[in-house]
Amino acid sequence: METILNLLPLTDAERAAFLAAAPHEDQIFLPVEHLTASADTASLDKIARATVILGCVSPHMLAGSTGLKWLQTWSAGVNPYLLPGAFPQGAALTSAVGAYGQAVSEHMFASLLAVMKNLPAYRDLQIVHRWDDAGQVLTLRGANVLLLGTGDLGSHFAGLVKAMGAHTIGLNRHPDKPVEHVDELHPLADLDAWLPRADVVAMTLPETPQTVHLMNAQRLALMKPTAILVNAGRGTGVDNLALAEALQAGKLWGAALDVTEPEPLPQDHPLWDCPNFLLTPHVAGGDHLDQTVRNIVAIALENLRHFMAGEPLRNRVL
Amino acid sequence: METILNLLPLTDAERAAFLAAAPHEDQIFLPVEHLTASADTASLDKIARATVILGCVSPHMLAGSTGLKWLQTWSAGVNPYLLPGAFPQGAALTSAVGAYGQAVSEHMFASLLAVMKNLPAYRDLQIVHRWDDAGQVLTLRGANVLLLGTGDLGSHFAGLVKAMGAHTIGLNRHPDKPVEHVDELHPLADLDAWLPRADVVAMTLPETPQTVHLMNAQRLALMKPTAILVNAGRGTGVDNLALAEALQAGKLWGAALDVTEPEPLPQDHPLWDCPNFLLTPHVAGGDHLDQTVRNIVAIALENLRHFMAGEPLRNRVL
Repeated sequence: METILNLLPLTDAERAAFLAAAPHEDQIFLPVEHLTASADTASLDKIARATVILGCVSPHMLAGSTGLKWLQTWSAGVNPYLLPGAFPQGAALTSAVGAYGQAVSEHMFASLLAVMKNLPAYRDLQIVHRWDDAGQVLTLRGANVLLLGTGDLGSHFAGLVKAMGAHTIGLNRHPDKPVEHVDELHPLADLDAWLPRADVVAMTLPETPQTVHLMNAQRLALMKPTAILVNAGRGTGVDNLALAEALQAGKLWGAALDVTEPEPLPQDHPLWDCPNFLLTPHVAGGDHLDQTVRNIVAIALENLRHFMAGEPLRNRVL
Repeated sequence: METILNLLPLTDAERAAFLAAAPHEDQIFLPVEHLTASADTASLDKIARATVILGCVSPHMLAGSTGLKWLQTWSAGVNPYLLPGAFPQGAALTSAVGAYGQAVSEHMFASLLAVMKNLPAYRDLQIVHRWDDAGQVLTLRGANVLLLGTGDLGSHFAGLVKAMGAHTIGLNRHPDKPVEHVDELHPLADLDAWLPRADVVAMTLPETPQTVHLMNAQRLALMKPTAILVNAGRGTGVDNLALAEALQAGKLWGAALDVTEPEPLPQDHPLWDCPNFLLTPHVAGGDHLDQTVRNIVAIALENLRHFMAGEPLRNRVL
């Protein structure tokens, strides 16, 4: 018999569906808020006994999980589990990639539009009760949006900007494979040739040795002075000091970041006060949008059914 | 021979097109920036001599325009010209209605999304260098967007929210006449029945005796506590003091206004500091987006061709 530790925040209907998916197993339901920060002894014991864990458990809490067969993460990224010795040998690891596309792309889209329409400047004026005109604005109609990263997040984002009349150009390692909502695809190696033609550069890349500081000072300098940079992938994708210099020098129209390097952004970092710059503290994803949680639960439930049937798991990483 | 005073800011190609549209008339080109606030004597004389004026002239500057045959306004609204004695008897008046749909609807859309994604709160945190989570966000996917006003602006806005998955419900005086991007239409008289079902109430109404304080305290109280009010029509459409009370009491999720009553909003008005409230100073339209100016010029050019051919003018009000 499996011991299934379910840490997901479930509706009654979802809980019933999990029970029905594995009716003869020992299912322990422990909503996620009980297992953040520092877990108590009883919780750690439950983790240690579980053969299946569904939800948010930090790798360091898995030290005693010698009987673990499968972990379904809450997150789309799984880098912390991939460090040497972090994850129990032989156990399966599946991610929640695909659950965050709507939330993250909508947040990026809202942030981009806010910068295009000078809303950060208007907010600053509102705070001091000033009724002043902040000048010209931009539109996505007819704009070239360059997508660095064309996975779930990039494709969702492409759909949103296309609906407002933008042309979408995706750069990735497999440009021969079509991506929904992306008008044209080219090799990521051609980045330097595409940057000068972009009105928007939208980054949704994971962190890999190839993506660290992909947008460095040289590449930022290739962007139009009327262009906007958006990043909701990983903070290391952009050289944040170089971006601050470009914004302060007026070499870009603006930028919106949901991710920085490091996080939190240090108190004295020059980015905080840059003009036409909107910062959000890595909140595009997470559980800020209820639909994201429902998507994660749906992936976990689908995978539990696969697991019980001995079928291949979706989003399998290990 | 007509004396055509053209006050529009033109590209070289546009100027050539105007010259070609009326090659045998006296065309005077005077870019709009020369005719704001207080005009000099020479300019007033040019206005007085013109038989056709294309562009932005305040009604009080038309006192001497006894020979005026036609005025094409820069604005979509023409109320100031309709006051008794304000406009020369017998002259034609045409508006620029239709030119502002893209700019105003995009601004409303960006403001709505900003409030849905807590961007005003994140901006406030950014200013004090704080990396804090502002909590749950909303989405337009599956949302009911109630449109008060279904003209050019309302229809454009409906198209934008529909593309993000919203359902659009328009209320107007002629619900039997379909409006592009509006899923269902009902009589404006049914407003009180529809307000409790709306996730977003989006106002683009002109000022008429029927629209003044249409959204009063009683109607704001009919909205869901999770709903958002957006107004880019006329400031008088909303009782601003009642809105401030509703926001302060947490009876609405948030609001975004580009128009207030009066304008500018007085320094000590309670709206400025309301939670989840974004204020912009009547900048959604105007000439903030270059495309708006090009649209106005296109309407004026089309109407000049109609005028020279003796055909009916587009957007004719008088």
